[in-house]
Amino acid sequence: MRVLGIDPGLRNMGWGVIDVSGPRLSHVANGICRSAGDDLAVRLLSLHDQLTDIIATHRPDVAAVEQTFVNKDGAGTLKLGQARGIAMLVPAQAGLPIGEYAPNAVKKAVVGVGHAEKAQILHMVKLQLPGVQVAGPDAADALAIAICHAHHAQSAGTLAQALAKATA
Amino acid sequence: MRVLGIDPGLRNMGWGVIDVSGPRLSHVANGICRSAGDDLAVRLLSLHDQLTDIIATHRPDVAAVEQTFVNKDGAGTLKLGQARGIAMLVPAQAGLPIGEYAPNAVKKAVVGVGHAEKAQILHMVKLQLPGVQVAGPDAADALAIAICHAHHAQSAGTLAQALAKATA
Repeated sequence: MRVLGIDPGLRNMGWGVIDVSGPRLSHVANGICRSAGDDLAVRLLSLHDQLTDIIATHRPDVAAVEQTFVNKDGAGTLKLGQARGIAMLVPAQAGLPIGEYAPNAVKKAVVGVGHAEKAQILHMVKLQLPGVQVAGPDAADALAIAICHAHHAQSAGTLAQALAKATA
Repeated sequence: MRVLGIDPGLRNMGWGVIDVSGPRLSHVANGICRSAGDDLAVRLLSLHDQLTDIIATHRPDVAAVEQTFVNKDGAGTLKLGQARGIAMLVPAQAGLPIGEYAPNAVKKAVVGVGHAEKAQILHMVKLQLPGVQVAGPDAADALAIAICHAHHAQSAGTLAQALAKATA
């Protein structure tokens, strides 16, 4: 299973692709879609096209997007929401199932605790994906989201196997 | 000039198309794109596809989108932001220039004052677009946004003419 993790943001949208084979994870690619300037529509279109290219290039089977909650200013939340709309739309356009994970669930899956520092996340992402070169903090977050999805999918698979055995 | 006005919303996204010929406005079509259910990605994709169809059918020259500010809960603002991301993306994908107007600017352009009730907006939309059948309050708002854009484009045109005369 190939997983695309997305950390939504208007200026910097992190993305990371990993392969999951049973308990084994391996890094495929990661990066940051950037958009700048005054024209919001142009920025959203640029993010849309960058994400579309990433999916066309790496052909993930599933996407995982961070479930963002921002409690600061309304304008910031609206901006983030607009970017997140694109982050959800593009995998849906490609027909991918999409998992959504809260930041604390991502941290817990990757670091083991719900309140982890950026540096800790980067460290654990590097440990779990040997040899990875991370494009930046947003890309590390995106890889962490993909890893989180892999863990959840694995638990679900293990549970399904256990249930199948129990009822066999 | 044909103008598509959009009132962004996740559950109900109002839209309205008008033709503008000098000072004359005429109604073309209006309606509401609806999305419901638990799957956010499916809802955003549905809104995207409905808006894409509307642009393909009515071929507007320009789009105008309400510049929403919500000060209530962050979750509501995030939802609205995600829908607004789609409302901005689709006209950009069609290559349309996009005007953004604050709610007060829309009310001022249509009703004459910045703080108008829904009923007043509907009344003035009906006066300015004789014979219009409005699909609902969100569609009335979308038509008001299109009218607001027409007024702004007209003022800009008049100004350009005056400047051309003055420098002739």
